[in-house]
Amino acid sequence: MLGNCFYRRLLLLLWRAKQTTTGLLVGIHSFSGKLLVIPMDGSHWVAIKALAQAMGRRGHKVTVVIPEVNIRMGPGKHYDTVTFPVPYDKASLNIIGTNKHLMEKSSESFIQDMRKRFAHMQRIADFLHTTAESLLFNATLISHLAEQVSGFDAVLTDPMVPTGTLMARKLGLPSINLLRGIPCLMDMKAAGCPSPPSYVPRFFTGFTDKMNFMERTINTLVSTYCYVWMGRRFLGEEVGIAELLSDSAIWLQRYDFTMEVPRPLMPNIILVGGINCNVRNPLPEDLESWVSGEHGFVVFTLGSMVSDMPVKRASVFLEAFRQIPQKVIWRYTGQIPDSVPDNVRIMEWVPQNDLLAHPGARAFITHGGSHGLFEGLCHAVPMVMVPLTADQPDNAQKMASKGVGVVLDIMSITTEGLLQGLNAIINDTRYKERVQKLSAVHKDRPIDPLQLSVYWTEFVMRHKGAQHLRAAVLELNWIQYFCLDVIALLATVLLVFVILTVKCFKVCLRKLGRKRKQE
Amino acid sequence: MLGNCFYRRLLLLLWRAKQTTTGLLVGIHSFSGKLLVIPMDGSHWVAIKALAQAMGRRGHKVTVVIPEVNIRMGPGKHYDTVTFPVPYDKASLNIIGTNKHLMEKSSESFIQDMRKRFAHMQRIADFLHTTAESLLFNATLISHLAEQVSGFDAVLTDPMVPTGTLMARKLGLPSINLLRGIPCLMDMKAAGCPSPPSYVPRFFTGFTDKMNFMERTINTLVSTYCYVWMGRRFLGEEVGIAELLSDSAIWLQRYDFTMEVPRPLMPNIILVGGINCNVRNPLPEDLESWVSGEHGFVVFTLGSMVSDMPVKRASVFLEAFRQIPQKVIWRYTGQIPDSVPDNVRIMEWVPQNDLLAHPGARAFITHGGSHGLFEGLCHAVPMVMVPLTADQPDNAQKMASKGVGVVLDIMSITTEGLLQGLNAIINDTRYKERVQKLSAVHKDRPIDPLQLSVYWTEFVMRHKGAQHLRAAVLELNWIQYFCLDVIALLATVLLVFVILTVKCFKVCLRKLGRKRKQE
Repeated sequence: MLGNCFYRRLLLLLWRAKQTTTGLLVGIHSFSGKLLVIPMDGSHWVAIKALAQAMGRRGHKVTVVIPEVNIRMGPGKHYDTVTFPVPYDKASLNIIGTNKHLMEKSSESFIQDMRKRFAHMQRIADFLHTTAESLLFNATLISHLAEQVSGFDAVLTDPMVPTGTLMARKLGLPSINLLRGIPCLMDMKAAGCPSPPSYVPRFFTGFTDKMNFMERTINTLVSTYCYVWMGRRFLGEEVGIAELLSDSAIWLQRYDFTMEVPRPLMPNIILVGGINCNVRNPLPEDLESWVSGEHGFVVFTLGSMVSDMPVKRASVFLEAFRQIPQKVIWRYTGQIPDSVPDNVRIMEWVPQNDLLAHPGARAFITHGGSHGLFEGLCHAVPMVMVPLTADQPDNAQKMASKGVGVVLDIMSITTEGLLQGLNAIINDTRYKERVQKLSAVHKDRPIDPLQLSVYWTEFVMRHKGAQHLRAAVLELNWIQYFCLDVIALLATVLLVFVILTVKCFKVCLRKLGRKRKQE
Repeated sequence: MLGNCFYRRLLLLLWRAKQTTTGLLVGIHSFSGKLLVIPMDGSHWVAIKALAQAMGRRGHKVTVVIPEVNIRMGPGKHYDTVTFPVPYDKASLNIIGTNKHLMEKSSESFIQDMRKRFAHMQRIADFLHTTAESLLFNATLISHLAEQVSGFDAVLTDPMVPTGTLMARKLGLPSINLLRGIPCLMDMKAAGCPSPPSYVPRFFTGFTDKMNFMERTINTLVSTYCYVWMGRRFLGEEVGIAELLSDSAIWLQRYDFTMEVPRPLMPNIILVGGINCNVRNPLPEDLESWVSGEHGFVVFTLGSMVSDMPVKRASVFLEAFRQIPQKVIWRYTGQIPDSVPDNVRIMEWVPQNDLLAHPGARAFITHGGSHGLFEGLCHAVPMVMVPLTADQPDNAQKMASKGVGVVLDIMSITTEGLLQGLNAIINDTRYKERVQKLSAVHKDRPIDPLQLSVYWTEFVMRHKGAQHLRAAVLELNWIQYFCLDVIALLATVLLVFVILTVKCFKVCLRKLGRKRKQE
């Protein structure tokens, strides 16, 4: 009996010690706070959810505010949700999720094609705008939250759409951003972080940090355009978006130097690339038994924003899968083609990270979204990348340049091309070796990115911000920042000096000339 | 029996879990490597020793190379030492340690005084040079180390004098720098880190990150001077010092945003300010009993480079101490004045960090060296700062601006002034409150700086460098870095465009004129 008692007490102690280990090292300030979370939908939700859950598990009261109708956001075990009504329904959301046009060569003219694409982008923008308005002008909800505000310590948000930042400003709370990055490096600009165009490539250029003269020229032009764009876009409004975002206490960036270029960072930018790598569970039993087999399996997903694809394109994939010994798990919600090979299993949703973490995973066919790439990198699975839109072409190019995968063009993809790509990354061991090496470096960090995110979120809650990390650059205008006034002064002084010297010299020469004449 | 067995096994498990907790969180790659340490003497030794000891405790074979004659370097429990002969003796070292001139108003003329100071600086430079040469030209030792080189994984050094960096280059090993900073921000330059003069103050200017126009002008001039100086100083030699240092894998900087200004940093710059805060032991019994008492005690040290002071100056301090109820522990190796009050204990060496960590510590009289300030900050002890030389005036100014201490001028210090300062920081609770708040923020970091240093040192040993953190800026020349070539091209294009437009306009006008004439 005594033994049993000891056993139980010590098990408890051991468990507690373990909790601490998976907790945080220094300054394990145990406190219970209140966190308001204003997330974004789609893939953006993945990381925010992971952090919201982790904060809830740490004992904080976490409130997540989500629209009634949404793509994938929903309740969780460790946080509460508050929903707000929106003036659209699930059907119109599904239209947004239709990205067929990204995978279909248009038979229409270039102009018509571009018009169609633009219309789709406009639909997304309108949708984001409507969602933001539905929250920001929901007086009942805001006043409900404001009543609780004395309790809230901070706002966690994804500032790609600055709804959360505006809410934080409204409620007078410090904000923590968790994001992948904002086009035109607006996030870096808002944090006051220098991004020299000579080696920091801009979004969508596809450049690396080693640029030739022509690339540097284009990168500089893009950077200048961005600068002007950011300055103009919100001209006349009370507060610019960069200025609004510059109030953020902490920037948790899903950025990692194994994937991205090494660049300067500000003190309040914390890198948490791969944040959801360790958020995982064992596979469901039926899936586990299905994927097991000597040849392993391939994971095929194109992200949550792509719900279906043209049947012709789907057949290209299926024909290639028919010719490989691996099993294939395909996350697909579109119309299922008639002849699905036996080694292919189509599912509406897959536990992507759990599958990639499985030792049987041989290859990952992905659209090159950052979450997928980080998961592939984390679990060292070589990749076939078929980028579609947004940052995906850039991401895919970066990973391909590391030799851990191949990039295929979705518009011109063929069964042969896909087969060749799959065979290369599965059978050419160099891909596996390179991804293992890169993965080892990626995971060799002093602290797990999710824990690090928890740490800094709690820091902001504890200290009501992170004032000591806020750089003075945010208080300077661009004339002061680039010291243009100082340069003007120094140039003037130099000019006056040169003019005076020349004048002196002339006077001397003239006097000398006169003297000579007199002689 | 069974219970006992369980008990022991579980205790062991518990102990192991605890070891992991005080170890490192992620990637606890247990491996045993070999580290070569080439330290600097004086206060620089403190941090390097702490890290060498920690590395030894982690199971690595650590070899520290030190000159036979030195100020404070010596053997440790967890590392081996290799000594090399130097052509100077302890007596000449002591002359270097005599900094009386820093505390004495000179009766000599300004020119003579400056000459004397310059001569002293020259002596220090010569001494550093001789030490470096003694190691770098010691063929026997180098070949001895080179024989072992297949065993060494990395070099840990303080690059203030780049002996260790040169050795690492010679031996083909990656290097880790542990430093406070190099004048002219040469460390930042070598790491490729931007330091905008508009809000990053230069050494010795005494400016903060909020500068007015005049200060920004001076800061810009100093920064330009530094740029030219760094470029010129080693002109003609095979490799410039900044270029040499840019090979460093990791920069462990004793820098912290509670003391310093928030500024951009590069990915391989790791902040470890306060590294020796937790390196501590209980006080020796006699000291413990001596310091105990209701009024607490004052710690008074002026750093390892100051061995004595003029008797007159010493009396100023003693007279002030006579009038306070606190006990005073004074680290002093010079001539002891005749009348030492009962509440003062003069010691040749004091366990400074242990004393400051003692709950009875009420005030810290310090010269403002970074180690002392970090220790005071760590243990939240308000300070009276009497800066003498080097970065001390800057440091002291920064701490005073945070309201955690007062600065006194050693040249004009009086008993009354000192008393006033001591009374303020001991009895005005605002100083204590502010230092406690600042200390809380300083210590609120996800990982202890010593452990973080261990982590990155091991990282470099594991991966033979930290290549993925090396920014591409280090491969650019300054024309490319500032995109001057791109700007020249764009300006030319613009100019040609403007000229052509004007020409076109002129031709059109002329034609129009001719037409009119014809009509």
